[in-house]
Amino acid sequence: MAKNRIKKQHKKLGKAPGSIIYTGEKSTKKLFVEVFDYNIEKCVEKELYTVEEAFDFKHSDSITWININGLNHVEDIEKLGNHYNLHPLVLEDLVSISQRPKIDEYEDYLFVVVKMLYIDKSDNIASEQVSFVLGKGYVLSFQESEGDVFDAVRERIRQGKGRARSMQADYLLYILMDAIVDHYFTIIEDLGDKIEDYEDSIFSGQVNKTINKDIQDLKREILRIRRAIFPLREVINRIEKHESTLILKKTKTFYRDIYDHLIQVSENIDIYREMIWSLMDMYMTTISNKMNEVMKVLTIMASIFIPLTFIAGIYGMNFDYIPELHYKYSYFILWIVMIVMFLGMLYYFKRKKWL
Amino acid sequence: MAKNRIKKQHKKLGKAPGSIIYTGEKSTKKLFVEVFDYNIEKCVEKELYTVEEAFDFKHSDSITWININGLNHVEDIEKLGNHYNLHPLVLEDLVSISQRPKIDEYEDYLFVVVKMLYIDKSDNIASEQVSFVLGKGYVLSFQESEGDVFDAVRERIRQGKGRARSMQADYLLYILMDAIVDHYFTIIEDLGDKIEDYEDSIFSGQVNKTINKDIQDLKREILRIRRAIFPLREVINRIEKHESTLILKKTKTFYRDIYDHLIQVSENIDIYREMIWSLMDMYMTTISNKMNEVMKVLTIMASIFIPLTFIAGIYGMNFDYIPELHYKYSYFILWIVMIVMFLGMLYYFKRKKWL
Amino acid sequence: MAKNRIKKQHKKLGKAPGSIIYTGEKSTKKLFVEVFDYNIEKCVEKELYTVEEAFDFKHSDSITWININGLNHVEDIEKLGNHYNLHPLVLEDLVSISQRPKIDEYEDYLFVVVKMLYIDKSDNIASEQVSFVLGKGYVLSFQESEGDVFDAVRERIRQGKGRARSMQADYLLYILMDAIVDHYFTIIEDLGDKIEDYEDSIFSGQVNKTINKDIQDLKREILRIRRAIFPLREVINRIEKHESTLILKKTKTFYRDIYDHLIQVSENIDIYREMIWSLMDMYMTTISNKMNEVMKVLTIMASIFIPLTFIAGIYGMNFDYIPELHYKYSYFILWIVMIVMFLGMLYYFKRKKWL
Amino acid sequence: MAKNRIKKQHKKLGKAPGSIIYTGEKSTKKLFVEVFDYNIEKCVEKELYTVEEAFDFKHSDSITWININGLNHVEDIEKLGNHYNLHPLVLEDLVSISQRPKIDEYEDYLFVVVKMLYIDKSDNIASEQVSFVLGKGYVLSFQESEGDVFDAVRERIRQGKGRARSMQADYLLYILMDAIVDHYFTIIEDLGDKIEDYEDSIFSGQVNKTINKDIQDLKREILRIRRAIFPLREVINRIEKHESTLILKKTKTFYRDIYDHLIQVSENIDIYREMIWSLMDMYMTTISNKMNEVMKVLTIMASIFIPLTFIAGIYGMNFDYIPELHYKYSYFILWIVMIVMFLGMLYYFKRKKWL
Amino acid sequence: MAKNRIKKQHKKLGKAPGSIIYTGEKSTKKLFVEVFDYNIEKCVEKELYTVEEAFDFKHSDSITWININGLNHVEDIEKLGNHYNLHPLVLEDLVSISQRPKIDEYEDYLFVVVKMLYIDKSDNIASEQVSFVLGKGYVLSFQESEGDVFDAVRERIRQGKGRARSMQADYLLYILMDAIVDHYFTIIEDLGDKIEDYEDSIFSGQVNKTINKDIQDLKREILRIRRAIFPLREVINRIEKHESTLILKKTKTFYRDIYDHLIQVSENIDIYREMIWSLMDMYMTTISNKMNEVMKVLTIMASIFIPLTFIAGIYGMNFDYIPELHYKYSYFILWIVMIVMFLGMLYYFKRKKWL
Repeated sequence: MAKNRIKKQHKKLGKAPGSIIYTGEKSTKKLFVEVFDYNIEKCVEKELYTVEEAFDFKHSDSITWININGLNHVEDIEKLGNHYNLHPLVLEDLVSISQRPKIDEYEDYLFVVVKMLYIDKSDNIASEQVSFVLGKGYVLSFQESEGDVFDAVRERIRQGKGRARSMQADYLLYILMDAIVDHYFTIIEDLGDKIEDYEDSIFSGQVNKTINKDIQDLKREILRIRRAIFPLREVINRIEKHESTLILKKTKTFYRDIYDHLIQVSENIDIYREMIWSLMDMYMTTISNKMNEVMKVLTIMASIFIPLTFIAGIYGMNFDYIPELHYKYSYFILWIVMIVMFLGMLYYFKRKKWL
Repeated sequence: MAKNRIKKQHKKLGKAPGSIIYTGEKSTKKLFVEVFDYNIEKCVEKELYTVEEAFDFKHSDSITWININGLNHVEDIEKLGNHYNLHPLVLEDLVSISQRPKIDEYEDYLFVVVKMLYIDKSDNIASEQVSFVLGKGYVLSFQESEGDVFDAVRERIRQGKGRARSMQADYLLYILMDAIVDHYFTIIEDLGDKIEDYEDSIFSGQVNKTINKDIQDLKREILRIRRAIFPLREVINRIEKHESTLILKKTKTFYRDIYDHLIQVSENIDIYREMIWSLMDMYMTTISNKMNEVMKVLTIMASIFIPLTFIAGIYGMNFDYIPELHYKYSYFILWIVMIVMFLGMLYYFKRKKWL
Repeated sequence: MAKNRIKKQHKKLGKAPGSIIYTGEKSTKKLFVEVFDYNIEKCVEKELYTVEEAFDFKHSDSITWININGLNHVEDIEKLGNHYNLHPLVLEDLVSISQRPKIDEYEDYLFVVVKMLYIDKSDNIASEQVSFVLGKGYVLSFQESEGDVFDAVRERIRQGKGRARSMQADYLLYILMDAIVDHYFTIIEDLGDKIEDYEDSIFSGQVNKTINKDIQDLKREILRIRRAIFPLREVINRIEKHESTLILKKTKTFYRDIYDHLIQVSENIDIYREMIWSLMDMYMTTISNKMNEVMKVLTIMASIFIPLTFIAGIYGMNFDYIPELHYKYSYFILWIVMIVMFLGMLYYFKRKKWL
Repeated sequence: MAKNRIKKQHKKLGKAPGSIIYTGEKSTKKLFVEVFDYNIEKCVEKELYTVEEAFDFKHSDSITWININGLNHVEDIEKLGNHYNLHPLVLEDLVSISQRPKIDEYEDYLFVVVKMLYIDKSDNIASEQVSFVLGKGYVLSFQESEGDVFDAVRERIRQGKGRARSMQADYLLYILMDAIVDHYFTIIEDLGDKIEDYEDSIFSGQVNKTINKDIQDLKREILRIRRAIFPLREVINRIEKHESTLILKKTKTFYRDIYDHLIQVSENIDIYREMIWSLMDMYMTTISNKMNEVMKVLTIMASIFIPLTFIAGIYGMNFDYIPELHYKYSYFILWIVMIVMFLGMLYYFKRKKWL
Repeated sequence: MAKNRIKKQHKKLGKAPGSIIYTGEKSTKKLFVEVFDYNIEKCVEKELYTVEEAFDFKHSDSITWININGLNHVEDIEKLGNHYNLHPLVLEDLVSISQRPKIDEYEDYLFVVVKMLYIDKSDNIASEQVSFVLGKGYVLSFQESEGDVFDAVRERIRQGKGRARSMQADYLLYILMDAIVDHYFTIIEDLGDKIEDYEDSIFSGQVNKTINKDIQDLKREILRIRRAIFPLREVINRIEKHESTLILKKTKTFYRDIYDHLIQVSENIDIYREMIWSLMDMYMTTISNKMNEVMKVLTIMASIFIPLTFIAGIYGMNFDYIPELHYKYSYFILWIVMIVMFLGMLYYFKRKKWL
């Protein structure tokens, strides 16, 4: 997965910087643009299929949220970008999905890249790039495919309850990002479950043959999650310290709240990370313990029967003169001797706690 | 436990930020509010069952400590919060018990979240969230359930000995937090005992089958404790550097003292952490040592009796012509040879220090 | 490789600082100088074989890129350096190929050293030093041998598409460095593939005898790559913060973009690093697992047949009086007993999951 | 030991902050106070048994060093503290011996806590808390029991050689602290010897059964030493940066010298730390090596004699028709065959370097 | 070695700070003082055997380099120090050879301590302390014994080529330090060779019995080298930032160059460090691999011959009625059965890749 991500970047090799090329794999057939234009009094909601229809909202006095789905439609995105005076590098980064979370501060707008994490059909943790442009009175959001993580946000805007419609565009960006960050908790909870499952299976000794590989994959996975989440802390930090009219002072308290959530997630990730790294040690001791048990069985069996076999061998010899052979009770006495030896051995191993 | 903590957060998924939802498990039947209103001359102590009765104390000239128990009564907490002009995010954090220790500085008050650690009935280390609001002349404290860690504080206020009643609200907050931090020492002492017990049992080789899992749990536990205590240092630091009339200069020396205690606790935690991580290695060498012993027994038994059995086998052969078989003393000579071999082997293993 | 690098430095031992001595191994027969002199309107491209021919371009109003290939021609480089007033230490560093990426800020020009990474004929990752001097209106670049990583840049200048010819020398430096950094992605992708191959082969147990050495080499390799790439971040950072007319404000956004790419590469390197370090553990558990299997076979074989052999030995004894020997069905009963024991053992090992 | 330290703290649980309670174990029967009052011309030396006698020295123009031994006499210490206007928290910290090295800067004086390390009767490294109060013209020092680390200092003051009597109180504090820090070198040298002893005994394979536990104790010990020494660097640093008339500029050079010594000690501690952590690995490989040897003996014995026993078994069979049994030289030929096999095996194992 | 170093410090225990005591072991019979007094026009070179002869050079207008060999002649050094107004602590540090690299900035001069590394007769890496005092127009250098690392510097001054004689005393200090730093490359190259030798011998399995100890020594050695080199970076850094007429701005570029070299050396050291730490793991897997091989031989031998021996045992029994014994071809059939079993086993182990 991590490898794929890097391979994608390849498509652009040798291209001029600023070339706008979608590096992801998700192609939506049609561009799908969703517009919310609202203020405290009204809320207009539209679904568009060309970007041109969205141009008019730029100059509205109300707050506008334009959500673009389908990053493979690069020409449309370029048109929209030009209309909103976005820097070519912003457009390039929008569609190049291997970005790490970051914030670029331009004069008229902020450009924020975030990683949305979700659990895909094959039960792995997948990530999708979501980019935001926060300008005066508008937020543009760009997604690879129509997600549903924003559904609660849509509902809140429609209903106009709470602060949702009474505040500025910076607050809109906040609730959008908050929705993504809240989702991280589900992801790490899922990861925690996985780790505990592995712990249990290693502990009970019922590991399947791929455990070695699985732990390695888990390591890779948590490193990828870390990479998606950790830089976001710096992004939020930069938003909090941003000095312009784009971010109002009273909204910063809310960004601080996201920051606190991110720290919580980060701490959990680091704990899980240590747990994963410990799995290998745990597995190693389990193997050693098993070998110990195997060796004990061998040692007990061999230590008991090898001496007995030797004794039997003695009296299987064909010497002309072996006096014991001719006594009447030799055979019975020998059995008694051997049983005593057998029991002695058992007692010895019992005392050593091997049995 | 750590997992549960994260799952709790879930309840809120998709809710608007600022929604005030209690995420813990401890539900007290009734809200229990305790009020101390005192100055150097007098001390009024009341137990209330509605928050409204506490409203009047806001405007008293004396120092007021309102201690609210039962975070599941969110409506009451909201009422109190509105009366004291608390920010919605403060109310949200109050009842969301997965916060990490933090301080939020608002214009009129400081909001501090602390983790109280205690040893629960099943002898595990549990944590409970305690939040404080420090305003001009009052301290609000919020607990999940009525604890007794503040008993000494109550007694000190009642008796009015020492500085307790002669200083301001910032000193009240200090003695409350000091009570919690002092309790950390008990926790880590308990943890230290546990680690030494494990060390002893690993060292003596009398480990039960869950040792592997137990060490893993211990790792998780100390990581959780770290997470509860370490951020508090930054909180105290921020209080010390806080520039407003809420924290008087002469009180800062006392907060410095808490800080010193926290550093002591932190250092102990880090030492215990290294000890826990070493337990696994120690266990591993113990296993290897045991296997070594098992192997030695096997090797000694096999090395002694296999050659002897071979010799016995030789003279059990049925060749027509084996001259030794017909000598009179062959059998006795053979015994002597075998005893010499046996003793030789014993000597060899003795010299190798295997016996 | 790393060792060679250090040995090279040796040639200079005892020489005066500032001595200009080529420490690499690649000697081109002829110095090859390539000049691009362009502005938004025109573009002159020349190939020269003496440095003197390049001197005139210094005073042209247009942007000049002089690309020097063949660092073994130190006298020519010295001449050029004197013509452009380069500090003796710059000339020394130019040809001393064991530099780490760095930037030296002089009054009239910036001196930047970068490591170009590529995969050589024997499929190893090799590095070549590329140095840049950015002055007012010109960029000098110095390479050990004619590379082709700049081909795309040449094409872009010729065609004059995009920003390539409309911007200043600082932008030219940017696209040259961008070409090198973009190439890093190929390198780490290749490295990622190698690691996954090792993981697979360790996991499947089909390791060849040099695996131990191979992992050690891999460790060394990634440390070398890190060393080539990580300091470059600081270099770019310094360029971004550089305060002079050499770097225009509008170009800094582009350098920021390189920085982002470098962070991406760095993060991948660190993930791969952890993976490589884990390979050893993975290999160790594989060995232990194998030994476990070997031991099981031995234990099963020995535990089954040693007791049986003992029984056979009993009835091979030559005592005069062994009643069982003379019963008619003794032999058959014994067979039944032995088969029962055999099956019992099999069942025991089956239950223990050893079979 | 570390555990004890934490348990001590306990005595104070629930007490008001600022309660002055001695938390150590060393009770001197009598308080012993020693006073040096000197300037460049004269030197008065007194031994007192009540603190009141020391009160007069406060106002002397000369430099006064009051050395208090016996922290269990808390009332006396409190009296002295009140006389010198010491903050209640200072008095609390003085007698609470689990402090970490720290400096508290008050208006009129500096309060410094240092850990004195020494090797106790049972050859362990013990620590004792020594506190200093540096005021205008005086130094108070507080020790648990009368040590002798200050003997050289006393002698130097008496003799008045060098700078000892010609400088101010800040220089007196310096020579007192220098005496303690110089002693650290002895401690870490002792520790270094211990580590080398363990290395030698592990290397030679002559480990006693507690080695596992011993290494764990060594780890704990070095962590404790680190904790006693490392914070002192910050203390010295703060003294150097202290801006008041208490620390003269010309004395700071001397504190810098202590700082350099502390860095030296710290570096040695960190080297020893790595060495101790490596001991476990070293021990592990030693165990594995031994097991290897054990296995080789077993394998050689079994591989040689099991096939030979099989051959002997063949000719012990009772088939009616085994032609070899009746040839005259069968037995001798068989011996030759077996000896050849034996030698072949020996050669094989020799070639494999197992012998 | 590290231990010795610490023991040396001991000689001074209890002495007054500022006592000038040589703590090294190298005693030269005679003090040997070498003077270079030069400017761009002339160069006077003298060899002196008393320090007094060197006093006159203090007031010369030209640049003076006084190189003192033989730190055991402390009285002479003290005289010289007093003549040049050196602080007592400088004199103490000069002759106390366990200093770490450092710089002390005094009003009129800089005091720099550097560690010279060289390979001694017994092929170990040894270090010698070299101290410099840089004043207005002069450099004093202090060495334990006459080294030859400055030979190239001497030659350069004599010949007056390049910048050597045309610049100030700060440049002289630079070329002296540069000579020492350049020598570090030889040391780490030697270290790299050693590590590769160990890698090769571990890899080929031909380790001698002290490998465990050798790796431990290597660890210690690289930690010592680190300690000698790493602090020097800070020293150079401080020189670069030094603000006085002692260090001219144009010379700082040259110190920057030393800094770059130090970073290169440091990076190599850290790579080698990781390599050394990996050696232990590599050795461990080698041991395990060997044990695996030993076990395989045992298992194959035992698994093949134990069942066969059992069969032979069966027909060695003396039952009256064993029908197979009397068939004519029993013996031959049995041989066939046993050979088939033998081959079957071989095939089984072949398929398992154990053969």
